[in-house]
This record gives sequence, C-alpha cells and structure tokens, in this order.
Amino acid sequence: MKGNIVVGQSGGPTAVINSSVAGVYAAAKKIGVNKVYGMVHGIEGFLDDKMIELEDYLAEPTGIELLKRTPSAFLGSCRFKMPKIEGHEDVYEKVFEIMEKHDIECLFYAGGNDSMDTVKMLSDYAAAHGKPQRFMGVPKTIDNDLPVTDHCPGYGSAAKYIATSLKEVIRDNESFGAKKPTICIVEIMGRNAGWLTAAAALAKGDDCSGADAIYLPEKVFDMDAFMAKVKHLAETKSSVVIAVSEGIHIADGRYVCELANENVAVDAFGHKQMSGTAAYLAQKVAEETGLKTRAIELSTLQRSATHLASLTDINEAFQVGYDAVLAAEEGKTGMMITLDRNGDDPYQCGTSAYDIHAIANVERPVPAEWITEDGCGLNDGYEEYARPLIMGELFPVFVNGVPYHLVRK
Amino acid sequence: MKGNIVVGQSGGPTAVINSSVAGVYAAAKKIGVNKVYGMVHGIEGFLDDKMIELEDYLAEPTGIELLKRTPSAFLGSCRFKMPKIEGHEDVYEKVFEIMEKHDIECLFYAGGNDSMDTVKMLSDYAAAHGKPQRFMGVPKTIDNDLPVTDHCPGYGSAAKYIATSLKEVIRDNESFGAKKPTICIVEIMGRNAGWLTAAAALAKGDDCSGADAIYLPEKVFDMDAFMAKVKHLAETKSSVVIAVSEGIHIADGRYVCELANENVAVDAFGHKQMSGTAAYLAQKVAEETGLKTRAIELSTLQRSATHLASLTDINEAFQVGYDAVLAAEEGKTGMMITLDRNGDDPYQCGTSAYDIHAIANVERPVPAEWITEDGCGLNDGYEEYARPLIMGELFPVFVNGVPYHLVRK
Repeated sequence: MKGNIVVGQSGGPTAVINSSVAGVYAAAKKIGVNKVYGMVHGIEGFLDDKMIELEDYLAEPTGIELLKRTPSAFLGSCRFKMPKIEGHEDVYEKVFEIMEKHDIECLFYAGGNDSMDTVKMLSDYAAAHGKPQRFMGVPKTIDNDLPVTDHCPGYGSAAKYIATSLKEVIRDNESFGAKKPTICIVEIMGRNAGWLTAAAALAKGDDCSGADAIYLPEKVFDMDAFMAKVKHLAETKSSVVIAVSEGIHIADGRYVCELANENVAVDAFGHKQMSGTAAYLAQKVAEETGLKTRAIELSTLQRSATHLASLTDINEAFQVGYDAVLAAEEGKTGMMITLDRNGDDPYQCGTSAYDIHAIANVERPVPAEWITEDGCGLNDGYEEYARPLIMGELFPVFVNGVPYHLVRK
Repeated sequence: MKGNIVVGQSGGPTAVINSSVAGVYAAAKKIGVNKVYGMVHGIEGFLDDKMIELEDYLAEPTGIELLKRTPSAFLGSCRFKMPKIEGHEDVYEKVFEIMEKHDIECLFYAGGNDSMDTVKMLSDYAAAHGKPQRFMGVPKTIDNDLPVTDHCPGYGSAAKYIATSLKEVIRDNESFGAKKPTICIVEIMGRNAGWLTAAAALAKGDDCSGADAIYLPEKVFDMDAFMAKVKHLAETKSSVVIAVSEGIHIADGRYVCELANENVAVDAFGHKQMSGTAAYLAQKVAEETGLKTRAIELSTLQRSATHLASLTDINEAFQVGYDAVLAAEEGKTGMMITLDRNGDDPYQCGTSAYDIHAIANVERPVPAEWITEDGCGLNDGYEEYARPLIMGELFPVFVNGVPYHLVRK
C-alpha cells in the first residue's frame, strides 16, 4: 500500500478491542504503510477530522504491549449510525474528502453488528461512485452475535470474567451454611443473544458445582416455571446462584426489566437500555418465598475487565486486525475478517475475509441444541465451543498496585 | 502446646481470610501442635461439633498455596451472635465441653467486630470460671473498621479490586466522547465506615483522572449539594464517575438506600442490609438532569475477588494467623493480633497482641482529616495510608481458563 490507512473503534467497548488496533498497526508497519491514523471516537470523530497518529503511542517498545493491556476503546468509541445514502450524500462525500485529504487508502472499523453496517454503507457508496478507497470490518463484540464468524473477539475475555466472577460469587454465597439459602441472581449483558449469559456455565468444574440455573433470552421466560425452579432449589441446596440475561422476556414480548420500569430508555440505534432484571426477580423471589435474596449486575465490569482478559482472545483480536490489513493489501474491500475454527482438540483457529453484506445487521443467537431441555442450562456442546476461548492469561503491568493503561494525550 | 487447636471463620468473607487459616496451620505445624481442627461454619457449626482436620487438605505441597488463592471462607462462615452469659451458661459450657472432648487448648477466630465479641465473651467466661482454654482473635474485615490495628486483613485486596474496577469502569465510561456525559454511580460496601469507598481514590494515577467525587458515610449526605456537584461535573466533563458508600445517610439519619425502599431487611446482628443507593441516585439524577445514568453495585464481587488479591494483604492475613498461634503458645488469651505500621517509605508492618476488650464492638471511621473540605474526596493522607496495602499480586492457578479453588469434600 502506497498511501496511509485509518482505524476506528465503534460501539460498546471490550477488554480486547485495543488488541485489534495493535494488530492493524503491526501489520501496517510490516507491509510498509506510511501513516496509521486512529479515528478519535469512531466515524463520528472522523467526520470532524479528529485523528491521532498511532506511531506517537506505539513506536515505543512497550507501546503495543501496554495497548493490549488497556481496556475500553483507546481511540474512543461512538454510537453513530450512518444515515441512508439517498438524501445524505454529503455525509458520505465528507468521509471520502477526509480520506483524500490525508491520502488514506483504506479504512478499518472494529465493531459489532451496527458498526459492520457502517462498513457496508461506505463500501457500497464507494462501489456505486467509483471511489478507489477500501473498507474492511474487524469483528468486535462481547455479545458474540455476529454471524459467519465462529466467534467474536471480545467474547472470550468477557466470558472468562463472567465465569471467574460467578465462581467467586458462588463461593461467597455458599460460605454461610444456612438452613435457608440466600438466592443470588446475577444479571449478565447480551441484549437478545444469550452468549454472555451462557458463559456462566463455564464456572463449573470439579471444584465448583456452577450456576444452579441459567436463563437465556433465546427462550421465552416463564415466571411461574422460574419461581417453581427457585423453590425447588431452595429446598435442596444451601446456596443458590442463578444467572439471567438482561434480555430475557416473557411470552407477550416484554422484557423482564420492563416489568419493573416501563420507561426504559432507548439509544441511538433504537436499542433499549436494559438493567434491573436481577433486582426485579430478586425482589419477587423475596416476596413470594421470604428467602433472603441478592441481585448482582455485572454491568460494564464484564466488558472492561482487561485485568482478567483471555490470552486466546487477545491474540485473536490482534490477528483479525492484522489480517484485515493483509486482506486490504490484496485489494479486498467491503468485507469483514472472520474467525474460522479448524479444530477443538487441540483448538485451532484461522481467519478469512467474508462479504460484509452477509454480516451487517444480522444477529446470531445461541443454537437451540446447546440449551438443555428444561430451558435453564447449557450442555456439553456449548462447553466444547466456549472453553477454548477463555484459555490463557496476559497479566497487566501493575503500577502503584493497579493495572497501568495506555491513554491518549 | 501439647494439645490440639481449632480455627474458625466468621462474618462476611474476604478475599484473604483463608490465608489466615493457612497461617494458623503453618505456625501450629512449626511449633508441633498435634491436630489443627477447622470449625465448619464458625462457632455455630462448632456448637454442633462440626469440624474438619486441616491436615487432610493442607499436607499436600500445593495445599497452602491453593488455600491462599481460594476466595470466601474455606471452612464456611456464620453470623452467629453469642448470647449474653447470664441465663445462657449452657451455650458456653457446650463450647468448653467440645473443646475438652477434642483436647483443644486454644481457639482462633478470624472475623470483624462482631466476631471479636465472640472471642471476648468466651475468654471472659473462661476467666470467670477458671477454664484453662485460650481464645485468640484474628482480624479480618474488608470494612477495615476494627480499632487499634493499623488496618485489617481483607481490606487491601478489596481496595485493590475497587481501585482496579473503578479504573476500568472510568475507561469504559469515557470511551464515548459524547457532548453530554453519562453519569456513572458506583456503590461500594462498608456500612457505616467509608474505608472501602475511599479506595476509589486509588484509581487515580498519571494514566487516570480517578473518580470525580467520592461520598463516604462519615459525612452527612446532602442531596442538594450532590445534585449541584453532578450538574457542575456534567458541564465540564465528557465522562463522570462517582463513588458512593452504601451507608451514606441524610441529615435525619435515614440511609439513602432507605429512601428508595423503606422496608430494608435486617440481619442477625441488627444490621440493615444495604443495597440500591446507586440505583436510587442514578434515577434521581436522570430525572433532574435528563442525562444518561448508570448505576453499578460492586456487591459481593468486591469481597470475593481473590483473583485480584493484594500480595501485601495475603501475606499479612497469613501473618496475623501465624502470630496468633505464637501468642497463644506464650500463654496469651483474650487478645487479637493487630497490625502495627512501622514505616511508610518503605512500608513496614509488624504485629502485636492487644486486649480484645478494647476492640470488640468498636467501629473505627475514616479520620475526618483525610476527607477533603468539600466532603467528596480524599487527600494525600489517605493515599499514603492505603497505597502500600494494595501493592503486589499473587496470581491464581488457572485450570480450564478459570481460577482453581480448594474446597471442602
């Protein structure tokens, strides 16, 4: 590539989205790209010509290693939705104008479903208007709900955090050998996809009985069945820990979190901001059973806990960034890098580039065959799929007792 | 010591309370104690003669190292309050009967304020009735509110988790460079002592601006001043993260969490079960300002996160257990081991044994001189005190991608 490139980060941050930026930078240096720009706050900042040069941060020997250990979006993120092309050509022309101004040949965008839509729209516009610039998607989402790819960078680390935290919460909850158990309900992110909540199943091992029930949004949530399950568990166990997705909903389509609060806020993409599912259920259980309950919401902790990231995840996040640059160098555009699993034992994973049109705006749920018959557990199929993704650690650089991060000046 | 000893764990678990059990065991082996029993579920289980022999778990070369890396109470905990002696002599006699039955010379009890009361009552009873058995307290509480001792084992690790998590949450919250910031309110444990919440100040460093405001229960919470502070921050910053103690209360004495829910439950010691402070404040801010808000409750995660324990804390928890045995060997009884700071630069800390009567049931608040004038921050005095306590790491043994724990059979 003769010109420069730019990389941006979009949507909810993950523990490893910065490793993808590191991968883009490393590949660009490898193939002799001149300048690697970083959009400040994604395409929204790019439209205001807000950029930094990654060289300023990553040329130091420790730069890439610190970036890998830095949570959230180092470059800043955004939730900006590209408008439809018709009637908004000026917004698109602006993007190309800024690219030309900085001699940017290719734009790399790390994000989830909504962000891949940005890549699609921009590459479609380029194709329709004979623009030479190229656009590549780099997968990123803790939700793990992008199609085609075996899994999404960001998921493994969130899953490792969820499994570890749940195990620690289980240990805590069972410390009191009370006659009547405390019912602990843990709320996990993921909107309409249950991948993150499924990770609660990974807490199980020969030293831990694991979560007592796991409720995914892929199944309609039946309040009566839930309450019966809780009562049964309370009669047979001295500690009960249940994982629920923030996105569980009852038969009429309403989210459980909406039962507590009708006025759920909505973000720029029209997604409801979910919260309060565990608190609602905990209160309901306390009222119906008289048992002590506790609601825990893992909230943004689960997507920002780089201190407990999966090394496999970090390496793959780096790889998809790296390979996006190599694919662009080959002339590819309008594609996203996918992770392709080549084996489970030992786990092996390669990458390829895939048409963005098959990916943008498509959500992939947890397969029904991995959910147990009673609807509140995961079977070995999920375990075989997910366990390799949480393997390995990359410990933080601790300074003054806390992890040190790379930050923009 | 010719006979045997027993060690128990009591009250809310911590990330390092098991290190104290390891310390008791190691010292007992060193001085040739015959059997080291562990109470299953504290004094409550002991009254039912429920015990294990630590030898069965800790004789393996990896035993003590795994125990140090195991969160929560390995032996099981309890919230059992010893009744007043008068009229309940049978309960006390039962304790001595079981001690005699197993030839137990000395009882070690790891816990906080309430648990030290158990040590006091038992040693008082022994003194009054000419019993030879000895009773030693081993300090343990994430709340850090025991008097006399410089700090309490369990605090450093909780503080390290809080500082790290807050730093990650701050990074996450600031990733969207929105014109209007998201107001993130993080609720931290500690009941009437602000020590844990103060640890939010440790997130600050040259890579992090830290929490924007910190509200401790040591100061009366003024809702108007809080709202003015939030509005000011919202006008001047693109991200706002505020730490609040679960125990903050308004001028008339009511806890903020009670404003949301009048029917707060009460535990065996008469302590109110606090939760919902951040959620209440976040909703109030959203209503008054129209800004997006987020409430995060660190809940039991902050006391069970052994995966992020402070090595200083682990070593000191081990030491107080160890030194309690040595003190008992010298004939001491009715005392608790205290941590005595001998220097800040470098940090040095020794131990001594102190009369339990000066400790039981006394709560030590955060000193007023460490709280900034505006009432919502900590000054360098706190930093100098707390920073050494979170230093160092002891990484878990990861098996199948998650930390491995030692568990009772």
